[in-house]
Amino acid sequence: MCSVNPGHCTLIKYIFLLLIIIHLGLNTAESVWPLPQIFIPSPERYQLKPQSFSFGYRRYLDTKHSCSVLDAAFKRYFSILFPGYSYANLITFSVATQLLFLNSYKLSVFAGQASLNAETVWGSLRGLETFSQLVYQDDLGSYYINKTEIEDYPQFNYRGILLDTSRHYLPVQAILKTLDAMAYSKFNVFHWHLVDDPSFPYQSHKFPDLSNKGAFHPVTHVYTQSDVRRVISYARMRGIRVLPEFDSPGHTKSWGKGQSELLTPCYRGATPSGTFGPVNPTLPSTYQFMLSLLKEVASVFPDPYIHLGGDEVDFSCWRSNPYIRAFMHKMGFGLDFSKLEAFYIEKIVNITSILRKTSIVWQDVFDYHERRKFLSVVEVWKQGCYLCEVRRVVKAGLRVILASPWYLDQPGPTHNWARYYNVWPLAFKGTEKQKSLVIGGEVCMWGEYVDATNLSPRLWPRASAAAERLWSNERQTSCVERAFPRLQEFRCKLLRRGIQAEPLYVGHCKHEYQSV
Amino acid sequence: MCSVNPGHCTLIKYIFLLLIIIHLGLNTAESVWPLPQIFIPSPERYQLKPQSFSFGYRRYLDTKHSCSVLDAAFKRYFSILFPGYSYANLITFSVATQLLFLNSYKLSVFAGQASLNAETVWGSLRGLETFSQLVYQDDLGSYYINKTEIEDYPQFNYRGILLDTSRHYLPVQAILKTLDAMAYSKFNVFHWHLVDDPSFPYQSHKFPDLSNKGAFHPVTHVYTQSDVRRVISYARMRGIRVLPEFDSPGHTKSWGKGQSELLTPCYRGATPSGTFGPVNPTLPSTYQFMLSLLKEVASVFPDPYIHLGGDEVDFSCWRSNPYIRAFMHKMGFGLDFSKLEAFYIEKIVNITSILRKTSIVWQDVFDYHERRKFLSVVEVWKQGCYLCEVRRVVKAGLRVILASPWYLDQPGPTHNWARYYNVWPLAFKGTEKQKSLVIGGEVCMWGEYVDATNLSPRLWPRASAAAERLWSNERQTSCVERAFPRLQEFRCKLLRRGIQAEPLYVGHCKHEYQSV
Repeated sequence: MCSVNPGHCTLIKYIFLLLIIIHLGLNTAESVWPLPQIFIPSPERYQLKPQSFSFGYRRYLDTKHSCSVLDAAFKRYFSILFPGYSYANLITFSVATQLLFLNSYKLSVFAGQASLNAETVWGSLRGLETFSQLVYQDDLGSYYINKTEIEDYPQFNYRGILLDTSRHYLPVQAILKTLDAMAYSKFNVFHWHLVDDPSFPYQSHKFPDLSNKGAFHPVTHVYTQSDVRRVISYARMRGIRVLPEFDSPGHTKSWGKGQSELLTPCYRGATPSGTFGPVNPTLPSTYQFMLSLLKEVASVFPDPYIHLGGDEVDFSCWRSNPYIRAFMHKMGFGLDFSKLEAFYIEKIVNITSILRKTSIVWQDVFDYHERRKFLSVVEVWKQGCYLCEVRRVVKAGLRVILASPWYLDQPGPTHNWARYYNVWPLAFKGTEKQKSLVIGGEVCMWGEYVDATNLSPRLWPRASAAAERLWSNERQTSCVERAFPRLQEFRCKLLRRGIQAEPLYVGHCKHEYQSV
Repeated sequence: MCSVNPGHCTLIKYIFLLLIIIHLGLNTAESVWPLPQIFIPSPERYQLKPQSFSFGYRRYLDTKHSCSVLDAAFKRYFSILFPGYSYANLITFSVATQLLFLNSYKLSVFAGQASLNAETVWGSLRGLETFSQLVYQDDLGSYYINKTEIEDYPQFNYRGILLDTSRHYLPVQAILKTLDAMAYSKFNVFHWHLVDDPSFPYQSHKFPDLSNKGAFHPVTHVYTQSDVRRVISYARMRGIRVLPEFDSPGHTKSWGKGQSELLTPCYRGATPSGTFGPVNPTLPSTYQFMLSLLKEVASVFPDPYIHLGGDEVDFSCWRSNPYIRAFMHKMGFGLDFSKLEAFYIEKIVNITSILRKTSIVWQDVFDYHERRKFLSVVEVWKQGCYLCEVRRVVKAGLRVILASPWYLDQPGPTHNWARYYNVWPLAFKGTEKQKSLVIGGEVCMWGEYVDATNLSPRLWPRASAAAERLWSNERQTSCVERAFPRLQEFRCKLLRRGIQAEPLYVGHCKHEYQSV
């Protein structure tokens, strides 16, 4: 899970940013969320003048391509640092292309300059975020930054947020806003649970009827190809990968509306009942369709991973259907429908491999199948002893993404943020090698009760608690009481940046959220 | 509780609104929330043309004053009915002034006209709201209304929402937005819990230090006199009273910062500990201050009621203070500090009477004092058998506002809206006269975990469930399953009007909320 979609400016040996610093003075303690691995603050402070502040490059390896990602980031962070000022200093510069997803960086603020040093553009983005959090204003409105030394890298490479656009349609703006906020907490994967039972908003160019008939509305409640490109590009500019999920064979009711003979007809006795169950795994046409759809998905989404779902398959409809039962008999599956499910999933995983993508599945696929060697990455989502499950998966030599403790769609008082903070993904008995298979974690924002009206306050700042767990050193961030004031301050920063992050407890921010 | 601040156009014997209706056609069933008392829909429908639509008056009693309330409502509802069209048809008209708070109206849509008939301007506002909910668009964007007969009036006269601006400061815009949404659900009282322990945002002209020192910030986190006037006027235009609460003697920590010697110094042994407890009830200066403050409040807030709080008084500080103990001894209160509290509250209630205002108190005041005759209205807020408490209060001949079942600041899944719907305020053994003392109910949105970032989705549409309980006939609205689709549709209307109301369950609205 350490790669990213190809693009320019991914290898930059040293990126330095320079800033004009005027004045030395005293300080109040400042904080960064998530906490950097090595963070040496100092009371010595320097004043920043927006008029004379600029970002710049110091050294790079190649001059063949312009680095649009960093140029855009400079503009973005200038606006975040100095609201109301405009940044004219546009420099284009060039670097060679290479696939890397290193997020490490070094940041040094000292003697009138700040230098940011990163192996990759993605690390530079993380460093810019940290830099932006170090700058603060005094009561008179002057900007300051303290002398600081930071060396930083993430604890886990996969730090994801799942949004569900099937149970409720999320306007593209709501997704982009979430990507902004994700970057502020150093999340790096947007897991897009695009389609599910209630609606199919993805507008496929090969199968337009899927959304024409399966979306809540074929025009206003769909993601066009252009919408999807926009989301992917917006995410990439912020160092965020977009992982598409096309969950099957269950959770596919909406697929059936635009693709006849895909779903299994359920039977009442000897006659079809008129309702439909999971994808029909017995027909060759099913796999032709899935190959064709996934081929499109593989080309539209540049990420090397595809999430295939595979969770919560209800066997009752398969069981009711005489043709399915006949197929089971022919294949020698007996009455064990999980074998039929495995048969289906293996074929879909193979299709994904042919398309040169790696598949991720929900833990159900791992749990209910004996043959597990065809799997790569398993996402653990069930409640209960989720670390027991993590241990089982890594013992089987597979990689794990942990989601169970971060089901944030469940409403709850904000003060239970500590519940999402006090999670220890590696607290199981296992070898170092096994633990290294835990590649990260994911906040799940399922859509039963969530849409654009409540997405932001339900996510933020609770998801930021998970973000620190996934980025920072476990030993330095084990104390909820010490984290609390930092998270409160970070939440105020989110408000200042226009993110509708709800309060943790009684109190105030200098700049409150202004509703419209 | 059936009066309102004095103003123009409160008595209008007949208000008629006329609309130009063009076309007859077929229909889909339409709904109104909260459900009118008598509602006779019909499949016959009429088309509305925004270009030729107008509101107008048919008959009125007096022509001395212009009715700004209804003129403004016509403009507002025109925009709600036909977004994107502008309304040029401004008529001023005049009516006599009288104090009434009747909310009843009759609405008839028939043969190319709609007529709205109300005793008061406030009833007209309710009727306009109902009218606006009857209009709908077909898929081509044409507007329709069905032939309809409605006779309507509220079940309870007091239908309140409490906002807490002390634990978090709510920008004025967030309050105004809430008032908009309140009018859509026919709420008629904004209970403004202005001040409390954490902050004192009310900017008093007599005691400016209260907010200078007691607000979170003396400039950005206060309500100026002009802010307060704006809120009151905005509310009045929507038929909503503003009930101010100045809770004492507990919940007053923030008061002490700007008003020395008001709070009781707590003692550790024989010396003051440096901390402060409730208002000091033993000093004459306390009552001089309270008279002066409440006199200001009485003049700033035109509502004939003032909420005096009186809840959750902690006796430990009073107990620690030797001067308080000496006073207790002198007064013959023994060790019963609730007698001291009663002594204080009686004096404050008397001050309120002198100011010609009626006082409302939290149930604690009723519960802990033997002499209850000085009380008028008691607000029941504690959980448990709240109807037992309601019964005790009405048996004592006092009026009741019920808040216990509507503590909406507690986060919870939206689908528990039914919990706020299945409330039966009169389901206790009592005489008709006793039941008539239950004047209404109130949704409480305490501020520990709520500010402008999450206020709207936490309130709406759950508060609307309470609104129907307080407005509509209990027998016609006893079935949650029948209410569900109507509430879903009403929630879509709220979105269309820019209210950030969260979803009840999986699904969609024609116009989703567009985040910014």
